[in-house]
Amino acid sequence: MVKVSQQYLEVDPYKIIEKGFHKERNEVSESIFSLANEYMGVRGFLEEGTTLPSLIGTYFNGIIEYSLKDTPSAYKGIVKRSHFTINSVNFLKCKISVDGEILDLATSEISDFIRELDMRNGLLTRSFNWYIKDTVINIKFERILDMLTCENAYQRITFKANKDVKLHLVMYLDSNVLHWRDHCYWDKDSTYKKGKNEYGLSVKTPTTHQSLAATMIIDSNENEHSYVSKEKEISVHYYLNLKAGEESVVTRYVSIFIDKKSDEHIDKLIENSRTSVKKAYLEGFNKVIESNTLYFKKAFEKSDIKIVGNDIDQQGIRYCLFELEQNYHGYSPDNNIGAKGLTGEAYSGHAFWDSETYCLPYYLFSNKKAAKDLLLFRYNTLPQALARAKELDCEGACYPIATRNGEEACNLWQHASTQFQPTTAVGYAIYHYMNIYHDDKFMQDYGLEMILEICKFLLSRGQYSSDNKHFGYYGVMGPDEFELMVNHNTYTNFMAKKMFNYLFSLLKEKKYETQELLHKCGYTDELLKRMKEASDKMLILYDPKTLLYEQHDGFYKLPHIDINSIPVTDFPLYSHWTYDRIYRNDLIKQPDVLMFMFLYMSEFDLATKKANYDFYEPKCLHESSLSPSIHSIFASELGYEDEADKFFGFATRLDLDDYNRNTCEGLHMTSIAAAWMNIVYGFLGLRSDKEVISLSPKLPKKWESYEVNLLINDTKVKVNVSKEEVSFTLEENKELNLVIYNKLETIRNNTKIKRL
Amino acid sequence: MVKVSQQYLEVDPYKIIEKGFHKERNEVSESIFSLANEYMGVRGFLEEGTTLPSLIGTYFNGIIEYSLKDTPSAYKGIVKRSHFTINSVNFLKCKISVDGEILDLATSEISDFIRELDMRNGLLTRSFNWYIKDTVINIKFERILDMLTCENAYQRITFKANKDVKLHLVMYLDSNVLHWRDHCYWDKDSTYKKGKNEYGLSVKTPTTHQSLAATMIIDSNENEHSYVSKEKEISVHYYLNLKAGEESVVTRYVSIFIDKKSDEHIDKLIENSRTSVKKAYLEGFNKVIESNTLYFKKAFEKSDIKIVGNDIDQQGIRYCLFELEQNYHGYSPDNNIGAKGLTGEAYSGHAFWDSETYCLPYYLFSNKKAAKDLLLFRYNTLPQALARAKELDCEGACYPIATRNGEEACNLWQHASTQFQPTTAVGYAIYHYMNIYHDDKFMQDYGLEMILEICKFLLSRGQYSSDNKHFGYYGVMGPDEFELMVNHNTYTNFMAKKMFNYLFSLLKEKKYETQELLHKCGYTDELLKRMKEASDKMLILYDPKTLLYEQHDGFYKLPHIDINSIPVTDFPLYSHWTYDRIYRNDLIKQPDVLMFMFLYMSEFDLATKKANYDFYEPKCLHESSLSPSIHSIFASELGYEDEADKFFGFATRLDLDDYNRNTCEGLHMTSIAAAWMNIVYGFLGLRSDKEVISLSPKLPKKWESYEVNLLINDTKVKVNVSKEEVSFTLEENKELNLVIYNKLETIRNNTKIKRL
Repeated sequence: MVKVSQQYLEVDPYKIIEKGFHKERNEVSESIFSLANEYMGVRGFLEEGTTLPSLIGTYFNGIIEYSLKDTPSAYKGIVKRSHFTINSVNFLKCKISVDGEILDLATSEISDFIRELDMRNGLLTRSFNWYIKDTVINIKFERILDMLTCENAYQRITFKANKDVKLHLVMYLDSNVLHWRDHCYWDKDSTYKKGKNEYGLSVKTPTTHQSLAATMIIDSNENEHSYVSKEKEISVHYYLNLKAGEESVVTRYVSIFIDKKSDEHIDKLIENSRTSVKKAYLEGFNKVIESNTLYFKKAFEKSDIKIVGNDIDQQGIRYCLFELEQNYHGYSPDNNIGAKGLTGEAYSGHAFWDSETYCLPYYLFSNKKAAKDLLLFRYNTLPQALARAKELDCEGACYPIATRNGEEACNLWQHASTQFQPTTAVGYAIYHYMNIYHDDKFMQDYGLEMILEICKFLLSRGQYSSDNKHFGYYGVMGPDEFELMVNHNTYTNFMAKKMFNYLFSLLKEKKYETQELLHKCGYTDELLKRMKEASDKMLILYDPKTLLYEQHDGFYKLPHIDINSIPVTDFPLYSHWTYDRIYRNDLIKQPDVLMFMFLYMSEFDLATKKANYDFYEPKCLHESSLSPSIHSIFASELGYEDEADKFFGFATRLDLDDYNRNTCEGLHMTSIAAAWMNIVYGFLGLRSDKEVISLSPKLPKKWESYEVNLLINDTKVKVNVSKEEVSFTLEENKELNLVIYNKLETIRNNTKIKRL
Repeated sequence: MVKVSQQYLEVDPYKIIEKGFHKERNEVSESIFSLANEYMGVRGFLEEGTTLPSLIGTYFNGIIEYSLKDTPSAYKGIVKRSHFTINSVNFLKCKISVDGEILDLATSEISDFIRELDMRNGLLTRSFNWYIKDTVINIKFERILDMLTCENAYQRITFKANKDVKLHLVMYLDSNVLHWRDHCYWDKDSTYKKGKNEYGLSVKTPTTHQSLAATMIIDSNENEHSYVSKEKEISVHYYLNLKAGEESVVTRYVSIFIDKKSDEHIDKLIENSRTSVKKAYLEGFNKVIESNTLYFKKAFEKSDIKIVGNDIDQQGIRYCLFELEQNYHGYSPDNNIGAKGLTGEAYSGHAFWDSETYCLPYYLFSNKKAAKDLLLFRYNTLPQALARAKELDCEGACYPIATRNGEEACNLWQHASTQFQPTTAVGYAIYHYMNIYHDDKFMQDYGLEMILEICKFLLSRGQYSSDNKHFGYYGVMGPDEFELMVNHNTYTNFMAKKMFNYLFSLLKEKKYETQELLHKCGYTDELLKRMKEASDKMLILYDPKTLLYEQHDGFYKLPHIDINSIPVTDFPLYSHWTYDRIYRNDLIKQPDVLMFMFLYMSEFDLATKKANYDFYEPKCLHESSLSPSIHSIFASELGYEDEADKFFGFATRLDLDDYNRNTCEGLHMTSIAAAWMNIVYGFLGLRSDKEVISLSPKLPKKWESYEVNLLINDTKVKVNVSKEEVSFTLEENKELNLVIYNKLETIRNNTKIKRL
């Protein structure tokens, strides 16, 4: 694993701090200092603009467009037009100048630069002294997104000069924003000025017909101002007369309403945004700091992790928790978790199987509504999954590799037509959710139908070997994206068998009304019989002598490449090896056999885990950012402490320290969730795939102790792990049955168990 | 095989005749009535223009451009910009009107339409009566391309009206031609008028900087005319006063000079084309008919096939011979054989491995210069093949899947990065050529270097299995394009081993100066040792019990699909099945195991051929137009007469009867060559892969007798096969050693051998 830390930020348990401006990392900082509230996200760009490399990005969850051109030479089943989350109105934009000289951190002379993101309330502050001619102006920018009234955003700029000076400040709402620095996906609609200090604009998307209305109120002591309205832009000009030593404050309140389903009239959006921004203005800037502080306090009560003895890890994991909360917390089942959250344009705002596989566990143990919403997203997009299966000449539901609106957005056939872990991941997520919440109503209303359609797809896509002895999947790619068009990928076969068997068990339970659903989904006795046979004949390539699962039929015969023989400069392989070369050897990109073993961790004994880890880990390049966490969890269970620690360090500070050198494109949101799993499934040893939740806490050598807040079903529990013992804090009247170190225990407040 | 004849042309042994205008087949006729002389090609479009669907196409061999945009999301090794033969100046264009009513066969009232292509001289004639108001005008168009002075083309239009009438005729040189009906790849340069009746234009390509100059002289009794010069177009207007019952003739002489290498000044091109067209004008239209007649007579002396008792087959095969001669005959080693020749834009004018594998045999036995030129094309483009290998992280020479200029033009990685039959085909072609001509000078000057670089590539692309026991190719596609990213494709492994061994035998012979070449190509003893080991350990999946070669590792285990279970409406599968579905079963598109057995036909015994044919043929969909001929050749040897006949019928008249329903896009030039093989390697039983050429003539049931003209090394021989005997006609003083029906015979003029 060739990963090098690029640490440049101060270490602090509750804050992300940049001391001194790191010009060359402007885009990295833009990602790290992103703000989001699930409804919208805004990169940490310099609102005053800069000539430094920059990605000015503002994204609204669900505001999308389609690619301008068809995929060239599209064969059947290949997506013709991709959709993606588009860059939207820049509502923080301003321009600051004195005597015609424009503030630009690329070239302006500054000192005492400090930028802070407070993870206790989501307030981002940036200040510095600007030297202009013989004047020094201290400028402080603050911005915050409202976590409750998510349409609202706030910006405050404070100026203080050492002598009297006139400063020109322009505040914009600007929809002339380029997506991927290339194309503006917005059509104009209107701009408006209302009353004394209220300005707004509304815009529309050309093919998805979505609308957006943004209204701002600017609060300033300076009454004299003018405004300019241009196409898709409105700006307000102030000439501030700064008095020596006196603070001059300009506050902007913004409210942005969106219409994702193109069923609301634009006037209604404008009205809503005007009402909302007025309320914000009346309550004032400090009110949102208070309410956000309360919001995060409550959220972290169910999820915070405290590490004693290692501030670097502490900051890393708290940043993960903060970002997860910002980007997804169950605001709406229309939303999902983009691979980059709302922090950039890489991966086009798409959600992947990461949502169910890497992110869901965090929400399962901290936020039931959010967990359920993730599943409802898949239920709401079941029609698209049914349509996709048809496009692939199959039946049932095939969930997309990449999507924002439920349609498949990936136009690379080698992924979109051959990877089925997104589909089985949805089934697994339902199983996982049910295992913890036993939510029979959910299963009856949503879950069962999804399982039925998923199984129908899996039956229709599978094939029998020529001798009819084995069922399985031909021409697939498993989770490991370094093996293409293989047969009997064990992950795929194993998960399909699990799905079939889960369905059989659900039908057998007779707990649910199944008659109507079976009919709706076109199930017959004959179909179920065929499914049973497919499950029985599913080929699982396992050798009881070696305890090894073969990743796919023929994997063992592949040419071997010693990872250590590859020059460092060859990484990442996608950029340095020809496309075909990556595939024709036994190198793997990420866990594949280990991945299904992870999902059903309780089913495999330690010897089997050890055998497979020892076999596959040395072949793994971890070119997926999701890979190290899973390996750390295995290493932890297997007692490979150093490896567990090595992989963990990478996962937790992936973005803060820019290990992959691409944080500039946005945060690795789903790796951030995997970092949570790394601690909770790794060191704390949580297992949630069997009937009773279990823990086997270990303490990493470099920590003195740590404390994990969890929500288990409806019970908040704080688990403290010290060198000697594991102690639990619960509400007074609550108790929980948990397996601790393989022994069933009833846990109450203050229960203490000796550490093994 | 779902192939239906769409016959609409008259049957005639020497002509292609369309009686009555088949509007709905306008584009098919455009392809079938194409003319070419290797230097240029022009589709059989209606020169007067039409509103019917039409592809007005004129192509000059080697005039190319690059795609306007990069391949999206190009991984390493994937071609960024493709090149292709572009549509060029339309030098036959005219416009005919009377009283403002324009002649357009889509709507004009006509009768007695007849179009004839005479295969004895390449003259295309079209005539009909045009009813316009109360006048009937008989119009006859003639066109011909000079087979010797290939820059020259001729057009003659004859009018005869039943009453006096004034006719407006415009003759154009037009370079505003769209490629793929989409984009004009020409930049303007100049137009010019010289003397009384000489007009011309010159144009340039924007990125390849190639030039073209066309000059025409128009000969007409009507002296009064005017001309108009526009951007990239010049036109001459005549008002012809037709007298009742009198013929009025307008003849156009054109000469087009091209500069492929952008090293000549445009003035020189103009001067050349003016000189050439003047000479043509002075010699007159009839002169070219005479010289072309002589040309084809001489050419057919070495290649004609006469079939007694079946005019349909006779016309079919003669059309094949005529088209091969038109499109490639050894005019220049800069040229190659496009999959559509010079008759359309499908396949972009690219040559494939078809040139060496399907076309070369025809030239080997009819035209040594042409055969050698095909090999020299590959020698001249060796630098591009070396560069391509590097792009693929390999060494040596990797020949492109598709090319016009030697660079890889295919931007689909699943073909361009994984198919190596073009590379081994070049090696095989050298072997094949040497086996017949024993041209040691060629081998010393060109062949050996190619073989060395090919073998170096094959060594660098191959890999050892994990246990180091087997060498072979991983992640490849063999000739059968329905199996993707497979390991140990037997065709690829077998051919690589053959290449290595051919090189070893050449080095062992000590006939050639090898020292310098080995050094130039970076060969060391160690490299040769590694090559020897690779060859020795090459995995050839063969089972002596069943006599079967497995197409690739795992082919036998693939899900089986009964070809007969596929609905007719599912063909072609590429259009009706999802892309991945095509690959995950045991259906094959074209011969793969049978293909290497065909190339080395003499090495396999009948039982092995039978076993493999019986196994693979029922799995073959023949979705490549090259497939049926190869199967017919096997069927013929195996005594499956009906199958041999069925496949043959399809191959010979593929385009004339539009079996594949895509003749509109251009002629299947390389299938046309395969049709020749079908007779010569099939019915005549020619084998050219062992030391002595052999024949085992059979007589198809539906023929009374047939006669094949061949050039064997430098000896012309006519083989006549009747029910009773095989008789030979040679020049008086010549003799040939041939194996006939497995017996070595010395053949002289009038030798007769009893048919077995």
